[in-house]
Amino acid sequence: MADQYAHDEARDEPFRTPVIRWEESPGGPVLTLLDQTRLPAEEVRLVCADVPALVRAIQTLAVRGAPLLGIAGAYGVALAAARGRDVEEAAVLLERSRPTAVNLAYGVRLAADAWRAAAGKGAERAAGAALTAARELHRRDAEASSAMAGHGLALLDELLPGGGGHRILTHCNTGALVSGGEGTAFAVALAAHRAGRLRGLWVDETRPLLQGARLTAYEAARNGLPYTLLTDNAAGSLFTAGEVDAVLIGADRIAADGSVANKVGSYPLAVLAKYHRVPFVVVAPTTTIDPGTADGASIVVEQRPGREVTEPPGVGGGLVVAPPGTRAYNPAFDVTPPELVTAIVTEEGVLSPVTGGGIAALCARSRQVTIS
Amino acid sequence: MADQYAHDEARDEPFRTPVIRWEESPGGPVLTLLDQTRLPAEEVRLVCADVPALVRAIQTLAVRGAPLLGIAGAYGVALAAARGRDVEEAAVLLERSRPTAVNLAYGVRLAADAWRAAAGKGAERAAGAALTAARELHRRDAEASSAMAGHGLALLDELLPGGGGHRILTHCNTGALVSGGEGTAFAVALAAHRAGRLRGLWVDETRPLLQGARLTAYEAARNGLPYTLLTDNAAGSLFTAGEVDAVLIGADRIAADGSVANKVGSYPLAVLAKYHRVPFVVVAPTTTIDPGTADGASIVVEQRPGREVTEPPGVGGGLVVAPPGTRAYNPAFDVTPPELVTAIVTEEGVLSPVTGGGIAALCARSRQVTIS
Repeated sequence: MADQYAHDEARDEPFRTPVIRWEESPGGPVLTLLDQTRLPAEEVRLVCADVPALVRAIQTLAVRGAPLLGIAGAYGVALAAARGRDVEEAAVLLERSRPTAVNLAYGVRLAADAWRAAAGKGAERAAGAALTAARELHRRDAEASSAMAGHGLALLDELLPGGGGHRILTHCNTGALVSGGEGTAFAVALAAHRAGRLRGLWVDETRPLLQGARLTAYEAARNGLPYTLLTDNAAGSLFTAGEVDAVLIGADRIAADGSVANKVGSYPLAVLAKYHRVPFVVVAPTTTIDPGTADGASIVVEQRPGREVTEPPGVGGGLVVAPPGTRAYNPAFDVTPPELVTAIVTEEGVLSPVTGGGIAALCARSRQVTIS
Repeated sequence: MADQYAHDEARDEPFRTPVIRWEESPGGPVLTLLDQTRLPAEEVRLVCADVPALVRAIQTLAVRGAPLLGIAGAYGVALAAARGRDVEEAAVLLERSRPTAVNLAYGVRLAADAWRAAAGKGAERAAGAALTAARELHRRDAEASSAMAGHGLALLDELLPGGGGHRILTHCNTGALVSGGEGTAFAVALAAHRAGRLRGLWVDETRPLLQGARLTAYEAARNGLPYTLLTDNAAGSLFTAGEVDAVLIGADRIAADGSVANKVGSYPLAVLAKYHRVPFVVVAPTTTIDPGTADGASIVVEQRPGREVTEPPGVGGGLVVAPPGTRAYNPAFDVTPPELVTAIVTEEGVLSPVTGGGIAALCARSRQVTIS
């Protein structure tokens, strides 16, 4: 019997199948995932019956996006517990599967802590506690999406009071595919659209893996947003032409000083936005804040295989465009310093200007369990 | 019998066959081109027996790069004349085939003017005059490459006097594939390499058509340069890490005020370079300067088909990554204002700072025929 989520009922599901779901199967519980590497060509579900399969799904980016990685990590711990595996080992494997998105470590630790706290009550109760923690994180993330969308739209209306509607530039994918709800930055654009105040969404294609073209354009099309795709290179021309009112992006880790690690290509947009005096807004749940990382220089940036660059993805993929033996530099993320960030929108409200003190106050207000 | 160029002997040919060549065939003269859309997978020659075929080659970017477009345009006029076609009509067709690179118009007008001046001496003499003009432009462009390489390397040594060698970031393709010689910006990197002063060449892949990955990496590999490919998005991380000593790019049109139109993605690099106080250097022959275009806002930027974005090129190409019906914004070029350009390197020397007065003086010094 398939597991039902309260939030599945509460919103328009933009996909034919849920992005992530805990399911009971004859062989025991499994975690099923919408395989994001196959979008937009087809909606294929990956079935993960154990943690190594989930780790592979995380590393190949079949499941991706900071908040969703947290949810997947928590369910992964619950899966190990339900199947009687070594939960401590599973937690380590999951946490190490990708280094930059702090939400992954957060979700893993949340479920593992719940499991440990209930360990004295027997294996079944402990496994149940881990699953409850994962479901609670999933539910809270959906709530956080709604709250961020509201705060973000209010901020846009304040920053850009003109009546013509907002022209938003976004990077990578930050919608329903990355969270338990409608996402982070994309959720704000969606809220603006529903309120009749989205004049246009500019979608960076986001090389190397084209999450903008493959995923954000897909979500924008499904939701009827007025969107236009562009190569990451073309963003500069949009700024020159005065076609961007605000940049909205998500985040994979926010350091204690307010530095923001996000998909590679975010930092150049921040510099362009600064040069053109356009607001640069980060939308992320407080689970993305890592008080244990002091500053931008301390953020570990994942280096991905060079073949993601030399073999551009297409549906079917694997085409080689560079000469044999070409070495590629392929960081998955870059880091934007706080002085280039106009505001950080969280479920707890808007932080602007972005300062270390403001980040600390935000952490104190949030329900976040500090990890270290 | 194949036509021989003096410069073919004078340099190491980086390709198995010449980039552009006038050839006699049993059916009359033809212009043969190395098809740049097929690189790096294979070296295929396109044979253009008439101007419409050459126009198609220009529009599909089988032949591309500002200086080479000028040479191709001049040979195109010579081809029309040699085959007894309407030379005036051919000149118009060629000039209109791509709007931004001023060198194309320059080459076409140079050969057409030679043809017109000799028209009184009969069709054969007039055709010969057009061909002589095309060959002269071809030869001069090779000379200009060498001169730019020398001036550019001297500038680098002056700007970056450290002994560790230069770490250069480049965008698009500016080597032997774009000119009668070894190119523009790439020729400077090559000169640095030969002088033992190139520490590394960072090659932007240059979406949408991946001229960096397909062509610059190919030329760098063939010449033994220490190069590393990156997505255009990753350039920001290089600046943050202090890994770029200078940005070197080419140009498609330089306006009278010193504004530079070049491959889309150049302007964001200029803004990043400014923010990080890294020299941003444009390398282009004086034929790229258009005194008839007053400023950056007056430069016509070619808009290319959206499918170049929605269907990323691979060898074999045609893979769709965005959902059906996705509209794409796809300008071929962007415009960098003179205040972001540290220097313009031409065959006549280095202009720095870049001012309208300096551009005018450079034009006066050069052999350029002003077009209007």
